Amino acid sequence: MTNTQIVAAPALPQIVITRQFRAPRELLFRAHTDPELLVQWLGPRQVRMTVDRLDAWDGGRWRYTHYWPDGAAHAFHGVYHGSPSAAAGIVQTLEYERAPGHVCLNTITFEERDGSTTLRQNTVFQSVADRDGYVESGMEHGVRDSMDRLSELVSRLAAVR
Amino acid sequence: MTNTQIVAAPALPQIVITRQFRAPRELLFRAHTDPELLVQWLGPRQVRMTVDRLDAWDGGRWRYTHYWPDGAAHAFHGVYHGSPSAAAGIVQTLEYERAPGHVCLNTITFEERDGSTTLRQNTVFQSVADRDGYVESGMEHGVRDSMDRLSELVSRLAAVR
Repeated sequence: MTNTQIVAAPALPQIVITRQFRAPRELLFRAHTDPELLVQWLGPRQVRMTVDRLDAWDGGRWRYTHYWPDGAAHAFHGVYHGSPSAAAGIVQTLEYERAPGHVCLNTITFEERDGSTTLRQNTVFQSVADRDGYVESGMEHGVRDSMDRLSELVSRLAAVR
Repeated sequence: MTNTQIVAAPALPQIVITRQFRAPRELLFRAHTDPELLVQWLGPRQVRMTVDRLDAWDGGRWRYTHYWPDGAAHAFHGVYHGSPSAAAGIVQTLEYERAPGHVCLNTITFEERDGSTTLRQNTVFQSVADRDGYVESGMEHGVRDSMDRLSELVSRLAAVR
């Protein structure tokens, strides 16, 4: 299993996450846009997730909720810019509902070579303060768990293709 | 007439534009979301503009085209994140169709005090290179013309209210 790389350069309102998967990009794309797959990997392992809406088309809206073991519900929503596809990737806005008015732009691309796919997620925030707040919220644990769980999921799915 | 301030700090994927108008924020908001008003100010003075689509709601899409005197057409499109309003402002994605795949996130707020409104437009790009490319395209002329034309428009409209 390769490692997840997270880059949050100082004084830049941006986070770049990269990770390589032994799976075709079509599978990675499906894992991002099929609610039944998405709930199996997005978030820390201790969190239960529901996809409340996922309209993966230009202008389509999405919303999901994370339920933590202590019962707290944390919801996120946004819209898709352009038509998401494995080839073009996914461009979407994202707003955490407990911090309304703070929106980021999330670009996910899938580059396949020799049966492996490099996922790159570029998130830009409205300010460096927003980015720093997100980093300080402990996002790193959630991102590493998510990428590991995604790797496990696509490995299982790739094995049965 | 107050001046337009444009801030593009070095090595930041961001541009912040501010401008004060002697008009209520509701009028500024309408000038951004009513196609008949939008075509009267958005862009350099020598450009003719059509609004091809403007669905000012959560997930709604927008598209407009600038026609230059030499006949060249330059189109832009994006989606709205959240419900635009004078109070909450406007959050939208933007993609210039001659540079497909490069998307920015545009946040416009209207702060009214004593009958004047401060417009603040915060644009964040997917990279510093994208931001620099936009600056080098000569955007400053277009922004200053736009803000002056917007000021003239809302002054005319405020006078007949």
